[in-house]
Amino acid sequence: MDLKALIRDIPDFPKPGIMFRDITTLLNHAEGLRYTIDTLTQKCQAANLLPDYVVGIESRGFLFGVPLAYQLQAGFVPVRKPGKLPAAVHQIEYELEYGTDRLEIHQDALENHHRVLIVDDLMATGGTAKATADLLGKIGCEVLAFAFIIELQALGGRQKLPNVPIISLVEY
Amino acid sequence: MDLKALIRDIPDFPKPGIMFRDITTLLNHAEGLRYTIDTLTQKCQAANLLPDYVVGIESRGFLFGVPLAYQLQAGFVPVRKPGKLPAAVHQIEYELEYGTDRLEIHQDALENHHRVLIVDDLMATGGTAKATADLLGKIGCEVLAFAFIIELQALGGRQKLPNVPIISLVEY
Repeated sequence: MDLKALIRDIPDFPKPGIMFRDITTLLNHAEGLRYTIDTLTQKCQAANLLPDYVVGIESRGFLFGVPLAYQLQAGFVPVRKPGKLPAAVHQIEYELEYGTDRLEIHQDALENHHRVLIVDDLMATGGTAKATADLLGKIGCEVLAFAFIIELQALGGRQKLPNVPIISLVEY
Repeated sequence: MDLKALIRDIPDFPKPGIMFRDITTLLNHAEGLRYTIDTLTQKCQAANLLPDYVVGIESRGFLFGVPLAYQLQAGFVPVRKPGKLPAAVHQIEYELEYGTDRLEIHQDALENHHRVLIVDDLMATGGTAKATADLLGKIGCEVLAFAFIIELQALGGRQKLPNVPIISLVEY
């Protein structure tokens, strides 16, 4: 299935000069959505990437992270913007494509023996994924792999991430 | 499975006097997560509630809405906070438990012949779910049912919603 044909390009969002890759049109397409989740699942299974937990990054990482956790029979852990998680958190500040931000994870969500898969919809500069890996490093758990629907290859995000498998389904 | 035992109670979040029902501990539990999605799916199928689209409300509605859409072989449509959706939107202002807010949906996400299921993690006063139903009313599509993980019965949200089936898995 041609997933790229299901992704909508929106120029100048959220800022002038940015070409936004809109995955809502992919989610809207029932067969495209199933194919996306099934393909992520198969790629993980084929590479023996079987995490204890899928970690999804707010909020578009939630969209793909939970169904992937379901399919892999793993738990799901959200990484969220500041102030959203109700219990004690670890926090990290990082640069993202359009400015700077912070991410949080519940301190008791994971333990240092857990193996995790980090999921987001899109890898641009890799800043958010790197920050999430660093946040997981505070807990001491092992990042098995990263999975993205979209990879913006020209921005070189791969070079920023730890040396583990990086799955992406659509490249620009 | 006792889902209530997997939901964590956090007093005074996000404000003093509010008992927050934290579903991150449920998501964290691989079997609990599977059971939650499977039970929602079975309840929909048993009642012949087979939507064209699952509509999930930002952001905790995303967590359960996408896997449910996957299981029901439906598309998924996000309803988001203002400014997050990149294309032209319909908008609605509404009161929620902790103040007021607005919600948006892409104008081209649904057509008036579509049948939809609205999903969120929790129904409190029902304000957010009602606003989402009203937003879908602007498009003219049919709300088949609502599905929530948690229902806070004392707040009477059910009375605010249209007269269609309301599924909830855990009541307080």
